[in-house]
Amino acid sequence: MPAVTDDARYERGRARFLEVHDEKALRAVEGLGDLGRSIVEFVYGDVYSRPGLTTRDREIAAVAALVALGRSSQLPQHLRASLAAGITPDELGEVILQTATIAGFPPAMNAMSTLRTILSEGDG
Amino acid sequence: MPAVTDDARYERGRARFLEVHDEKALRAVEGLGDLGRSIVEFVYGDVYSRPGLTTRDREIAAVAALVALGRSSQLPQHLRASLAAGITPDELGEVILQTATIAGFPPAMNAMSTLRTILSEGDG
Amino acid sequence: MPAVTDDARYERGRARFLEVHDEKALRAVEGLGDLGRSIVEFVYGDVYSRPGLTTRDREIAAVAALVALGRSSQLPQHLRASLAAGITPDELGEVILQTATIAGFPPAMNAMSTLRTILSEGDG
Amino acid sequence: MPAVTDDARYERGRARFLEVHDEKALRAVEGLGDLGRSIVEFVYGDVYSRPGLTTRDREIAAVAALVALGRSSQLPQHLRASLAAGITPDELGEVILQTATIAGFPPAMNAMSTLRTILSEGDG
Amino acid sequence: MPAVTDDARYERGRARFLEVHDEKALRAVEGLGDLGRSIVEFVYGDVYSRPGLTTRDREIAAVAALVALGRSSQLPQHLRASLAAGITPDELGEVILQTATIAGFPPAMNAMSTLRTILSEGDG
Amino acid sequence: MPAVTDDARYERGRARFLEVHDEKALRAVEGLGDLGRSIVEFVYGDVYSRPGLTTRDREIAAVAALVALGRSSQLPQHLRASLAAGITPDELGEVILQTATIAGFPPAMNAMSTLRTILSEGDG
Repeated sequence: MPAVTDDARYERGRARFLEVHDEKALRAVEGLGDLGRSIVEFVYGDVYSRPGLTTRDREIAAVAALVALGRSSQLPQHLRASLAAGITPDELGEVILQTATIAGFPPAMNAMSTLRTILSEGDG
Repeated sequence: MPAVTDDARYERGRARFLEVHDEKALRAVEGLGDLGRSIVEFVYGDVYSRPGLTTRDREIAAVAALVALGRSSQLPQHLRASLAAGITPDELGEVILQTATIAGFPPAMNAMSTLRTILSEGDG
Repeated sequence: MPAVTDDARYERGRARFLEVHDEKALRAVEGLGDLGRSIVEFVYGDVYSRPGLTTRDREIAAVAALVALGRSSQLPQHLRASLAAGITPDELGEVILQTATIAGFPPAMNAMSTLRTILSEGDG
Repeated sequence: MPAVTDDARYERGRARFLEVHDEKALRAVEGLGDLGRSIVEFVYGDVYSRPGLTTRDREIAAVAALVALGRSSQLPQHLRASLAAGITPDELGEVILQTATIAGFPPAMNAMSTLRTILSEGDG
Repeated sequence: MPAVTDDARYERGRARFLEVHDEKALRAVEGLGDLGRSIVEFVYGDVYSRPGLTTRDREIAAVAALVALGRSSQLPQHLRASLAAGITPDELGEVILQTATIAGFPPAMNAMSTLRTILSEGDG
Repeated sequence: MPAVTDDARYERGRARFLEVHDEKALRAVEGLGDLGRSIVEFVYGDVYSRPGLTTRDREIAAVAALVALGRSSQLPQHLRASLAAGITPDELGEVILQTATIAGFPPAMNAMSTLRTILSEGDG
């Protein structure tokens, strides 16, 4: 991995973040101060910038982990990122059903309801 | 979905289970009585038998959910299933790192350690 | 267990669901597509249709598990099902207090608050 | 509730603990210092001593909550207490299967395996 | 520990609760019936009344545990208690960031957002 | 924050890691490949290197979060780091008891047991 300054890391993370999510989501993260900066630098500048896994696969993992943990605040953002990465609505439904077998039906019910709301808003 | 009897469902689940895992794992599940039967019928006969998602994608979701929840007993089985479904060791490492951003480093450390043990056993 | 077709399983689950919950709850679950169908077929057609445990005992377990995991969206439905199954409001309070010793006070506080809201609505 | 001194509370908790569990379990808890004292006083002297719920119902709730949270260290103790309170092995299996629908199959698999070990030891 | 009656324990807990939180929070807890009474007696009359740890340190632990578990309903109360105990807003931000490394970024994002709301209300 | 290359970040993290933990722990983390590198760079090079919170306070938060989540594999390391940071064994016992009120007694029982083992080994 080439040496980078923290500012370069932030810029790399910012650019990657905007490929995965959008400007509105970036503003929300940047509104969280140093925690937001860590998310941009580490999650997007480091992890999401690694070449070993497609964004599609990263989002399947992200959605499954968020559903399993019941992290409902961050789920809409990653469902939208999943659709943007080419995962179809039906495939997202399958990921949620798959996760129900591991984490139980309640968080899967909430996630499916959130997915339907997002799809009905035409935010895919 | 075509109508099936429960026995047909069990047989379908059993066949699908053996495509994803192996005989040894099946015996362990079948040793759990009616709970084991439910797993074969519902998880493999119903969910894993659905056509809308590849086994590869199902296993990415399964590994991410298991890591996030710290379900260490079932993780080795799904890491092996992931390798059998064509996910490379490096990709599994990325799924684990990706999950660390959502569920924290501790369960990811355990998962990476488990992955390394499995790879060193040549069980991939 | 007698052999059944999937449609028979769905009908059995639907009938059992309506014994435990009500029409409004069924419509919410049926609004979740194939996930909802899995819930009706597997949770109510398979699990809740098993003779080995009373609905009363199933609901004590369901409430304790939902409180412990902080699954607040599904809790009201199961508190209502508990009351319908003959568990008294005082007994539900005890189940919640019992769960506090295992899962901590915060989820128990939320659950007690939800129980009080349900009782004040006369939805028992 | 009648006024009690802390020592009376401890004695009440100790007596109640021994009705639910056994001497060996008490020694383990008493080996935890002030935390153990809090468990005896609060969990058994206060909560388990309340008249509003049978020990049978308390143990159904305890097992469901422990399974849901994957708290495997305390599960054997409460499975044994459940059997002592008159819950049959088959009923415990149903409680575990019921919990699987809410918390997923992995913690239920571990719990069923633990139950089988306990039953085979004749520790019921 | 000196012998106390339950009423003395409740009064001790009530006084301690009001040092940590405020009247409004006490009314909310007292509105939870016997669960509320247990919280006042056990959490504040017993645990928070122990001399071995400062309120400041107790609140760092409380905030970290609440963030890690995603218990968002009780977090505002303990963020306010933390500020009242002399933890600065910047230190609370660090506790949240520290917890992100152990529990993942999603619950830390929610917590930071809650902290910012509390600070903007001048409730510190 | 001054600009740093990734190698400088790794070195900063490595030095900070060794202040908090020890050589043996570092080797374990470095054995986890890129995940281990992320932990050294991000958790220790970024988060633990921030000046806004003492190591003592960071470890109280770390222990509380690990206990709450039942992350037993990483707990011994942070209990040892806590002792090295000047937190006394009695204070650690209080942190664990405090966490029991938020996360329930089962994970606190395990943590207290682990603490006692560490203290008896003279590893403080």
